[in-house]
Amino acid sequence: MDIDEFRKKGKEVVDDICDYYASLDQIPPMSQVEPGYLYKLIPHKAPTEPETFDEVKRDFQTKIMPGITHWQSGNFFAWFPSSGSFPSIIGDMYSNMLNIVGFNWICSPAVTELETIMTDWLGKLLGLEKQFLSIQNDGSEGQGGGSIQGSASEAIVVAMIAAREKKLAELPKACPELTQDDIDAIRPKLVAYYSDQTHSSGQKGANIIGCKTHMIPSDDNFRLTSDALHEAIAADKQKGLVPFFVCGSFGTTNTAAIDDLPGIAEVAKKERLWYHVDCGTTSMPHTLFRPLAAGIEFADSFDFNTHKWMLISFECSVMWVSDSTHLVNALSIEREYLPRVKGDKSFVKDYRNWRLPLGRRFCALKLWFMMRMYGVSGIQANIRQHVKEAKWLEEQLLADGRFEIMAPVHFGLVVFRIKPSAVNNNPAVSVKECVVNKANIDLVKAIHKDNRVFLVGTMIKGKNVLRAAIGSTLGTHRNTELLLEVVQQLTTRILED
Amino acid sequence: MDIDEFRKKGKEVVDDICDYYASLDQIPPMSQVEPGYLYKLIPHKAPTEPETFDEVKRDFQTKIMPGITHWQSGNFFAWFPSSGSFPSIIGDMYSNMLNIVGFNWICSPAVTELETIMTDWLGKLLGLEKQFLSIQNDGSEGQGGGSIQGSASEAIVVAMIAAREKKLAELPKACPELTQDDIDAIRPKLVAYYSDQTHSSGQKGANIIGCKTHMIPSDDNFRLTSDALHEAIAADKQKGLVPFFVCGSFGTTNTAAIDDLPGIAEVAKKERLWYHVDCGTTSMPHTLFRPLAAGIEFADSFDFNTHKWMLISFECSVMWVSDSTHLVNALSIEREYLPRVKGDKSFVKDYRNWRLPLGRRFCALKLWFMMRMYGVSGIQANIRQHVKEAKWLEEQLLADGRFEIMAPVHFGLVVFRIKPSAVNNNPAVSVKECVVNKANIDLVKAIHKDNRVFLVGTMIKGKNVLRAAIGSTLGTHRNTELLLEVVQQLTTRILED
Repeated sequence: MDIDEFRKKGKEVVDDICDYYASLDQIPPMSQVEPGYLYKLIPHKAPTEPETFDEVKRDFQTKIMPGITHWQSGNFFAWFPSSGSFPSIIGDMYSNMLNIVGFNWICSPAVTELETIMTDWLGKLLGLEKQFLSIQNDGSEGQGGGSIQGSASEAIVVAMIAAREKKLAELPKACPELTQDDIDAIRPKLVAYYSDQTHSSGQKGANIIGCKTHMIPSDDNFRLTSDALHEAIAADKQKGLVPFFVCGSFGTTNTAAIDDLPGIAEVAKKERLWYHVDCGTTSMPHTLFRPLAAGIEFADSFDFNTHKWMLISFECSVMWVSDSTHLVNALSIEREYLPRVKGDKSFVKDYRNWRLPLGRRFCALKLWFMMRMYGVSGIQANIRQHVKEAKWLEEQLLADGRFEIMAPVHFGLVVFRIKPSAVNNNPAVSVKECVVNKANIDLVKAIHKDNRVFLVGTMIKGKNVLRAAIGSTLGTHRNTELLLEVVQQLTTRILED
Repeated sequence: MDIDEFRKKGKEVVDDICDYYASLDQIPPMSQVEPGYLYKLIPHKAPTEPETFDEVKRDFQTKIMPGITHWQSGNFFAWFPSSGSFPSIIGDMYSNMLNIVGFNWICSPAVTELETIMTDWLGKLLGLEKQFLSIQNDGSEGQGGGSIQGSASEAIVVAMIAAREKKLAELPKACPELTQDDIDAIRPKLVAYYSDQTHSSGQKGANIIGCKTHMIPSDDNFRLTSDALHEAIAADKQKGLVPFFVCGSFGTTNTAAIDDLPGIAEVAKKERLWYHVDCGTTSMPHTLFRPLAAGIEFADSFDFNTHKWMLISFECSVMWVSDSTHLVNALSIEREYLPRVKGDKSFVKDYRNWRLPLGRRFCALKLWFMMRMYGVSGIQANIRQHVKEAKWLEEQLLADGRFEIMAPVHFGLVVFRIKPSAVNNNPAVSVKECVVNKANIDLVKAIHKDNRVFLVGTMIKGKNVLRAAIGSTLGTHRNTELLLEVVQQLTTRILED
């Protein structure tokens, strides 16, 4: 494919994208193929001779598309939304054009410098305290700053590594007689804390760095509390373990619960733990929600996924630290083929020392296109609309009388179930939890089979519940109405059976 | 920006991409901006109200583009090429359209299944042994298989984690009386091996997982040899350390050297080390080079970057393992909100357990478009052309008489320097290494200032050398001729001074 052909076919792809988005409301959101469907449809090795774009496109439409679950559909309410936008797609098209491996400033100065400026823009948009900004208002360099990570999972690993090395470096200061062997012997005793509601990336991060973990039971509101953390730490210290890291959540995966962020901060400070706040899985400490995020200012690091509720295509997670020295100490490697430019450190940041991989795509570009083409007002309007829809859904479900809401609706997530009294035909006998669970599992299955909308269930504290995550860029009130209609219809059918 | 506007502006972006590629030969490849240039040009916070695409595009052209070093230019010979292609861009446009967070089969079956099939296609294209294929020729499930990683750095971390957990799991089998505490105490004693020519990701991987490393001096041909490895292991075992991992390189960063892969395999087998082969930094065990890669069939894991020399836009690294059980044992986490589909394991692979992050873009799509639209013949022709250019450049530099070639030219990389005798005016006196080094450093600086072509220098065994990495998709013989012309002209000027 030469330039002339791409000029023609690339525009055809733009048309395809437009046609796809225009048709999404008419497409069942969930793929219904069986495992192994694709292996039966396509050859088992690459063709020897080139094929045409038209041939591959035909197969894309007839063979790949049936195996697609439509994350951009307004009728997709599963997990958390991954809501892109046209400005983000445009930014990524230019990023693909330039195809830069950005591992340091000299690779392409604009890649590094735009990352610094965009993470600051985003930080200001979130109402972050100044310790999280790379460049202070007076133009001086900050101690901390933001950086682009692939995902919240990567961010938590970066935080854990920095935390581990910081803790190990502190030991000889407190106790100068420690030898290197003594310090090494402490590595397997390091323990990280998170709750039973923390995203799986907490445990996975620990698996990656190879440390111990302590999963703390959340309270009745699915929150990690400072008392429970304190207790867990005391028990571990008794056993000779060395606490070094705690992960708080601003919006957990199951219920979008907000941990006791200020309380955890106090314990973290007292016990000298690295305090990471994961906002990756649900939402963000947007200025709109800033009061809910009280305590986040004490975090050593936190992260949120712009590719979730902020109009950016996957992948683009942004992590802020209050002091970047710890990342750089833990992750920096120098080699002759990775030349550093002498220059103001505010601008010549080696982001390769702030993250796991050496290089990174030019992701700041899509942030730039999106933030400028939406403006702060447009970004806020998008979020407000989704919260309004979630509140409306909550009201309707409660008004129906057969459902209960399982967790406070702060953001776009509504966690609900058919309530025990609705399952029970005889009010004199109390209904067993397993019967209620079965009704709710059946409801999820029925929704999947019906396939006008798509959501997933989960289990919280032994209860099977449904999660409706509102946040599709293309979604309108009509989609939320459809969700409600489907849930109500299928609930009636299940309760009749 | 609504669908109608994107239909119009998206096509304008396609035109921009075409115009950019058509103009690349006329643009100086290396950005010449000063640190902090961008901060002076753009606002320090996001706009409140939306701006138009035209406004952002104008700033992209006038403010971002001057800070871009043109990795896709035919005159870019720095580091290793990151050579995309139109089919790859098209695949990524569709991937952006779908914007799927692929963390398991149910998220979108096609994402998982195409990853399995594409890594098998690629494996067959590379002439890999059957233990590296996910689906065997008879349709049965393989023990091993390929998976898409972000980069070679991530792949090496994944390999190290699997290696560590495999080693720790083996200990109680060999020595049943070991307690968990005993096993934990071994963690800080684990040691990974690599050479002084291994890519920095080897050391970074160790920093991430927190293990010890032993950097082994390479031989005069910049290769890690089995003897040197054997010696290092013996010394470490004497100190009570526990060897668990060795990284061999098929094409090092500095010189594209090929380690003694079969020799290392033998030592790894004897000492029960995990054997990872990094082909990420330079090239790949392509069928064309398969004889050079003898020994790779004994690897537990290996990885190569399709985003380097294989027409795929950054990021897309492919890692193969001969037994995926070890990855899954080390990295798998189960949660209710990550439902598994019961089905043939050959097709329902949870790639989240094969890599660091939970999710991944739909990268298999760009592999599919590229492999089909180039065909095996087209991919091979691209590689052959670059090797031919490299051989031509080597010949010309030797014929010139003032240069020496510092490492064998196997692939597209030519490592050379102005030779001592050319620097020396008086043949009766031997020239000092530092004088030769200075001449070569000056040559790199002069090339950067001239900016008709772009390459970088490095240092090998105390010698400053130049690296010309040929591999641009858009590059032609004319670009190599220009490189030679620039090198010759500037060398004349430097030697005259």
